[in-house]
Amino acid sequence: MLFQVEMTVEIPHGLAPDVVAQLKETERQRAQELQRSGQWRHLWRVAGRYANISIFDVESNEALHDILSTLPLFPFMRVSVTPLCRHPSSNRADDG
Amino acid sequence: MLFQVEMTVEIPHGLAPDVVAQLKETERQRAQELQRSGQWRHLWRVAGRYANISIFDVESNEALHDILSTLPLFPFMRVSVTPLCRHPSSNRADDG
Amino acid sequence: MLFQVEMTVEIPHGLAPDVVAQLKETERQRAQELQRSGQWRHLWRVAGRYANISIFDVESNEALHDILSTLPLFPFMRVSVTPLCRHPSSNRADDG
Amino acid sequence: MLFQVEMTVEIPHGLAPDVVAQLKETERQRAQELQRSGQWRHLWRVAGRYANISIFDVESNEALHDILSTLPLFPFMRVSVTPLCRHPSSNRADDG
Amino acid sequence: MLFQVEMTVEIPHGLAPDVVAQLKETERQRAQELQRSGQWRHLWRVAGRYANISIFDVESNEALHDILSTLPLFPFMRVSVTPLCRHPSSNRADDG
Amino acid sequence: MLFQVEMTVEIPHGLAPDVVAQLKETERQRAQELQRSGQWRHLWRVAGRYANISIFDVESNEALHDILSTLPLFPFMRVSVTPLCRHPSSNRADDG
Amino acid sequence: MLFQVEMTVEIPHGLAPDVVAQLKETERQRAQELQRSGQWRHLWRVAGRYANISIFDVESNEALHDILSTLPLFPFMRVSVTPLCRHPSSNRADDG
Amino acid sequence: MLFQVEMTVEIPHGLAPDVVAQLKETERQRAQELQRSGQWRHLWRVAGRYANISIFDVESNEALHDILSTLPLFPFMRVSVTPLCRHPSSNRADDG
Amino acid sequence: MLFQVEMTVEIPHGLAPDVVAQLKETERQRAQELQRSGQWRHLWRVAGRYANISIFDVESNEALHDILSTLPLFPFMRVSVTPLCRHPSSNRADDG
Amino acid sequence: MLFQVEMTVEIPHGLAPDVVAQLKETERQRAQELQRSGQWRHLWRVAGRYANISIFDVESNEALHDILSTLPLFPFMRVSVTPLCRHPSSNRADDG
Repeated sequence: MLFQVEMTVEIPHGLAPDVVAQLKETERQRAQELQRSGQWRHLWRVAGRYANISIFDVESNEALHDILSTLPLFPFMRVSVTPLCRHPSSNRADDG
Repeated sequence: MLFQVEMTVEIPHGLAPDVVAQLKETERQRAQELQRSGQWRHLWRVAGRYANISIFDVESNEALHDILSTLPLFPFMRVSVTPLCRHPSSNRADDG
Repeated sequence: MLFQVEMTVEIPHGLAPDVVAQLKETERQRAQELQRSGQWRHLWRVAGRYANISIFDVESNEALHDILSTLPLFPFMRVSVTPLCRHPSSNRADDG
Repeated sequence: MLFQVEMTVEIPHGLAPDVVAQLKETERQRAQELQRSGQWRHLWRVAGRYANISIFDVESNEALHDILSTLPLFPFMRVSVTPLCRHPSSNRADDG
Repeated sequence: MLFQVEMTVEIPHGLAPDVVAQLKETERQRAQELQRSGQWRHLWRVAGRYANISIFDVESNEALHDILSTLPLFPFMRVSVTPLCRHPSSNRADDG
Repeated sequence: MLFQVEMTVEIPHGLAPDVVAQLKETERQRAQELQRSGQWRHLWRVAGRYANISIFDVESNEALHDILSTLPLFPFMRVSVTPLCRHPSSNRADDG
Repeated sequence: MLFQVEMTVEIPHGLAPDVVAQLKETERQRAQELQRSGQWRHLWRVAGRYANISIFDVESNEALHDILSTLPLFPFMRVSVTPLCRHPSSNRADDG
Repeated sequence: MLFQVEMTVEIPHGLAPDVVAQLKETERQRAQELQRSGQWRHLWRVAGRYANISIFDVESNEALHDILSTLPLFPFMRVSVTPLCRHPSSNRADDG
Repeated sequence: MLFQVEMTVEIPHGLAPDVVAQLKETERQRAQELQRSGQWRHLWRVAGRYANISIFDVESNEALHDILSTLPLFPFMRVSVTPLCRHPSSNRADDG
Repeated sequence: MLFQVEMTVEIPHGLAPDVVAQLKETERQRAQELQRSGQWRHLWRVAGRYANISIFDVESNEALHDILSTLPLFPFMRVSVTPLCRHPSSNRADDG
């Protein structure tokens, strides 16, 4: 089941640089792990903003929430979720 | 070059049903043609709304505008465009 | 899988009264059918507005879209969809 | 009398972890107490956000305010309240 | 139980003047009837707009919806409802 | 002359509890004083939020500003002001 | 007593040109009459929009509403009203 | 003096095609005339929307309003105007 | 050339009282200086908010920016600027 | 390829003045460097706000993101990006 998720990251200015670096590195590792498992299907940077637009392929709303709410940067994100489904005009096998 | 495009369709209530049917059919054919050419890379329906979220892969802003502004349903759409780029944490070969 | 859906109905002023009455009656019948099948789990009127707040329990985003987009009043609705999941503090057996 | 309440929690980044943990535990206990008493009728997590959508069944606006304003996490919440009533198409005995 | 209600009236430009006049007259009569019964407790015009701000005193959300949704001008209104309760600093006997 | 005023209070989390308590007590006393003088004609709590909806009866815009801007909690409020006037359908002697 | 009023005019495209011309001419005459009486103290065009920003000097909210709601173009306007008062740093005799 | 202007065109669906074509042609001629005179300094299409972003170089707010309000498509535009001035970090001779 | 400017002041709660008092005093002096020079033509307090609505009469956008960006309270302001021009129905000599 | 970018700078009040001065100076140098290379084609100050409206001419979305996200003031900016393309009515050689 597919969801478009937009995550905007807002790290407080006072956070220590090494804490931020560590958060970003664990976030990167977690993102790659979830891409390998197939649940984080697409991941793009929004040009000009510290934000991404992603497509998740998960079994349920619960699975989506578990993934998002345990991301290392989750406490610093604004997140919007849009449920998607197969489009009748799509002719791409894996877009549904 | 990648763009996320969200199109929301609002067909006026007074439009004749056969005109609407014809518009939708030519729109469907055009969407499939653009998917085959690789320019309309992804196409999903937004659950519960007459809208889609799409990813376009085009050579330039001009190419994107030419495609969107000649869609048969364009006069009845609200369109928002978000330029994307490769995410440093992405490990998918074709997402950049 | 649960979704909160808010539907606001805006019927054009020019629509013939008997057409409207027929639409509302088929909408009512469809809503009851979907409640009996368990997919439209809750249905409340928003006080003071021609709108409802509903909880749907469906197998997938596709199932939700199929239900909403075939409602008789769908062409006259603004719809917002919020995916829900079980809350860790909930102690009600059927809320997840 | 029924109300939909959406609560979004925004805990300041500087709050001590044990204070936060204590707040969440007392919030959880209070939520379960109010579910057992029947006043907090439904409680769902919004997928992807630190937020919930709930249905309260209370005797009056005053009773609703007393419950919400004394929740342990209330100072950190944005709250929106929507008064609901029975929908004429509902066929569920306890939804009104 | 008290509710603040803001009603903004938008009558379509094409409506026949005598239909409009008749609607307004029946609206006026209904408003006075509901004031006499004590349910429409206060009624003020918003300066500079075709809108009112009102306070209703009703037994339930259902009672409020029944009143608002049967007003003659209801199909032409945007309505917002805010549930109120007694303020701890109020010293006016009839404001709770 | 009547004005609806909506005040939403947002006290910074770092303010010392005894300072907050003192501010609220002087606010309460000032609110009662202004009710006794007839200038703060109605005062209601908005259910579920740290906010009030009030009706002021003052001689001028200046008088309204003097009252609001000297409230003890004013530095922590978002305030919106709506000028009101007598409604032609009102039949209550003191609502104009 | 002073009010800033912003009026945005939206004339429906189907209105007959001579009706529009007549409305604008009577609007112009009424605006000049109210300027001569001193109640419409300032009147400026917003650059690039069919809108004006005005300052009214009236005795009460009622007087303001009577003036605005009887303007010939009122049925085609969106109006916003902001009550003003003398600024402590103003040194202009007639701005309060 | 420079202004950024964004114009979004919304032509009503019922307008006759030859009327629309004529409007667009006279709009195009007027735009080119104003570019030749140096007042319409830049003109770009917004990708994916029937809208433009332009830079005007005019002597006054009045001159800007005269230009915009006499464009053939002005009755069908939403217009936003942002006054610009030379940026201290600009090193381009003609951007001030 | 005329501009409406709305300035909303938001002073951080932690700023020392004597710093704030000094800022306000220099702001007051600067406002009076600019009124005497004729550039700050009108200055009104918005009733109920720490905000003003002003009319500036300056030679250019640059002159406006120089004035606003050097106000002592500028770092604590949200500012919105609306370019104005003479209204064809105005009959006041100095409003253009 | 052209993009309009609007950058609004919000420097936290607690940042040390010399740090701010250093950031602004390196920002200025970087802006001039990018103007000389032709990528930052236009740069204007928005009158009355600490913001700029710019036109970038870059090879791709990636190139735009690399430029914006490495600006010294980027962590303190809100950025909005609008992809542009040549307008059919433009007669300026370098606007496409």
